Amino acid sequence: MRKFNFSSGPSVLPLPVLQQAAAGLLELEHHGVSVAEISHRSRLFTDLLNELISLFRELLHLGPEHEVIILQGGARLQFAQIPMNFLKPSETAGFIDTGYWAHKAMEYAACYGQVITIGSSADQGYHIIPEISDLPHQLTYVQLTTNNTIYGTQYQELPKMAVPLIADMSSDLLSITRDFSAIDFAFACAQKNVGPAGVSVAIVKRSFLEKAHDQLPPVFSYKNLVAHHSNYATPPVVNVYMSLLNLRWLKGQGGVAAVEKINEEKAALLYNEIERNRLFNCPVVPAHRSRMNVCFFAKEKNTELAFLDFCHEKNIVGIEGHKAAGGLRASIYNAQSLENVAYLAKVMQQFEQQHASTVYY
Amino acid sequence: MRKFNFSSGPSVLPLPVLQQAAAGLLELEHHGVSVAEISHRSRLFTDLLNELISLFRELLHLGPEHEVIILQGGARLQFAQIPMNFLKPSETAGFIDTGYWAHKAMEYAACYGQVITIGSSADQGYHIIPEISDLPHQLTYVQLTTNNTIYGTQYQELPKMAVPLIADMSSDLLSITRDFSAIDFAFACAQKNVGPAGVSVAIVKRSFLEKAHDQLPPVFSYKNLVAHHSNYATPPVVNVYMSLLNLRWLKGQGGVAAVEKINEEKAALLYNEIERNRLFNCPVVPAHRSRMNVCFFAKEKNTELAFLDFCHEKNIVGIEGHKAAGGLRASIYNAQSLENVAYLAKVMQQFEQQHASTVYY
Repeated sequence: MRKFNFSSGPSVLPLPVLQQAAAGLLELEHHGVSVAEISHRSRLFTDLLNELISLFRELLHLGPEHEVIILQGGARLQFAQIPMNFLKPSETAGFIDTGYWAHKAMEYAACYGQVITIGSSADQGYHIIPEISDLPHQLTYVQLTTNNTIYGTQYQELPKMAVPLIADMSSDLLSITRDFSAIDFAFACAQKNVGPAGVSVAIVKRSFLEKAHDQLPPVFSYKNLVAHHSNYATPPVVNVYMSLLNLRWLKGQGGVAAVEKINEEKAALLYNEIERNRLFNCPVVPAHRSRMNVCFFAKEKNTELAFLDFCHEKNIVGIEGHKAAGGLRASIYNAQSLENVAYLAKVMQQFEQQHASTVYY
Repeated sequence: MRKFNFSSGPSVLPLPVLQQAAAGLLELEHHGVSVAEISHRSRLFTDLLNELISLFRELLHLGPEHEVIILQGGARLQFAQIPMNFLKPSETAGFIDTGYWAHKAMEYAACYGQVITIGSSADQGYHIIPEISDLPHQLTYVQLTTNNTIYGTQYQELPKMAVPLIADMSSDLLSITRDFSAIDFAFACAQKNVGPAGVSVAIVKRSFLEKAHDQLPPVFSYKNLVAHHSNYATPPVVNVYMSLLNLRWLKGQGGVAAVEKINEEKAALLYNEIERNRLFNCPVVPAHRSRMNVCFFAKEKNTELAFLDFCHEKNIVGIEGHKAAGGLRASIYNAQSLENVAYLAKVMQQFEQQHASTVYY
């Protein structure tokens, strides 16, 4: 029996995607080889890779001004690769401080150039998306995190910038419609809404790509990767294939706008239950609440531990908050069904009833 | 029907490994989640990761002086990561030039420090492992490639060095017994003898690791990765799992010494057929011939094209040589069975008979 998996990533994938991936590991579409065994230079693989890139273009409504790059590794590699390509030691990048991952990105960029915080919600415990202060002159770019997995905040609309905007979309790409015409560089690791861990995607505006440095190891050069159609170093073929299956699935669901509606419904269902339930609360400002990672707390610490035990009994896993924030977290990415979210809400109600006569509330 | 796949990587994997991996994608050992869906911080995953590291230690007979690191990406990332960790702008690394991949490694290291060639077989078309010239004073390390996939050469014994030795073992790790006590840093991408593309392994001597720089982005820092037991950035969980299944399989075969014997037998069978067959030849000096990648040529170009067609008819794939070297190449890694190699030799004989009356030889 499949668990109710609310893990923040690696996270739940659609069952049909897993079934097709398992079949492909045994034999790729009657080709007599496993998808894990095909040469990355073969037509068999380049067709899969190109279809993945095309599906990103289609699902995100990208125009000819954007390039899509399929990358190895995860978000931290991008935290380094972005300044390697776009920041010189004398230049300054601005960061919007929405917590943990913004700090990591800033720490990495500081290895290559100057960094500055242009807005922070640290004083509010990261329970809100911060306002941006006036930009200092001559920022090379501004980087922000569209969805914050750890604190459960999310940009509904991205701010307009007078300088190039870089967006870490690791945990909400493909889950919400975004206007990419205002974004110079976006990236996401796979293990939330794209596919299995070990592959990432970047979406870069050609005009911004032209500014990338040329003097860096080719494996890190976005220009080089674009020139090689994302097939320079051996791509992680299995991860690419599973991501392709997942994007085909997403297209079958009606695309991003269609799942966005379901994502709103799922989030509303869960936040409403948290508000209603006497045992829990959500500290995030309502307008900035994430539709991907619902972070909440039990009003009493003992209740929290009892609730985790109760979830365990009810076959719910991955509901603990991140160690940096504590509390509870339900990650409800595209692959999390409305039924599963409704199940979690019901379990929260059952728990409340069971604890009605205790001192916990 | 499974093809006879002689691809150089991504390459053939043992069928039981593919079957177990497919099962794990559907459900990991009755845990109610796919292996692609488990949190990298969960006990479920850390047990798998630690078992993989332990199996590397056991199969390679590593002592306590060595650390094993599981890494994202492939060999090119290591070409950059090694000098990031171990080479300063003023320092010089020596490279043994055995062709294509040695050049790439050198090109990458030159982004971070000084590089020098200390031996080359370029004049002999890379058909031999070169002699090493006297080492200049003050080399920070020497780097070599133990097996050269493109030209079909291989070190049977590694040279003794007065400076730290770094070995790119991408295409022969786990296929041949090596004395790691003389190696300060070894690494391999997975897609030959370890597992699917998208994960790599490094084996580093503690005394050498201590020399690694501290001022670099943590995702690249070997010290940091060791401190986090290879679980710093989200590891590619599926790739780690498949590598684990493959190492379990290797252990079941009797370990490295056992497969080494079979690898010798496979290589002898194929080289003997090439020598015997009137249509083919192998330009590599016999003592330096690779047991992993058998590179050979048809004596006439037309014969080569006809042979590729004949292989296609006989369900053989991946037999073309690398574009840099041309010709033909049969990659016979651990997962390639003796039966498959015997089949290829038989096909070569059939082809010879069919062409006995043509002008090709």
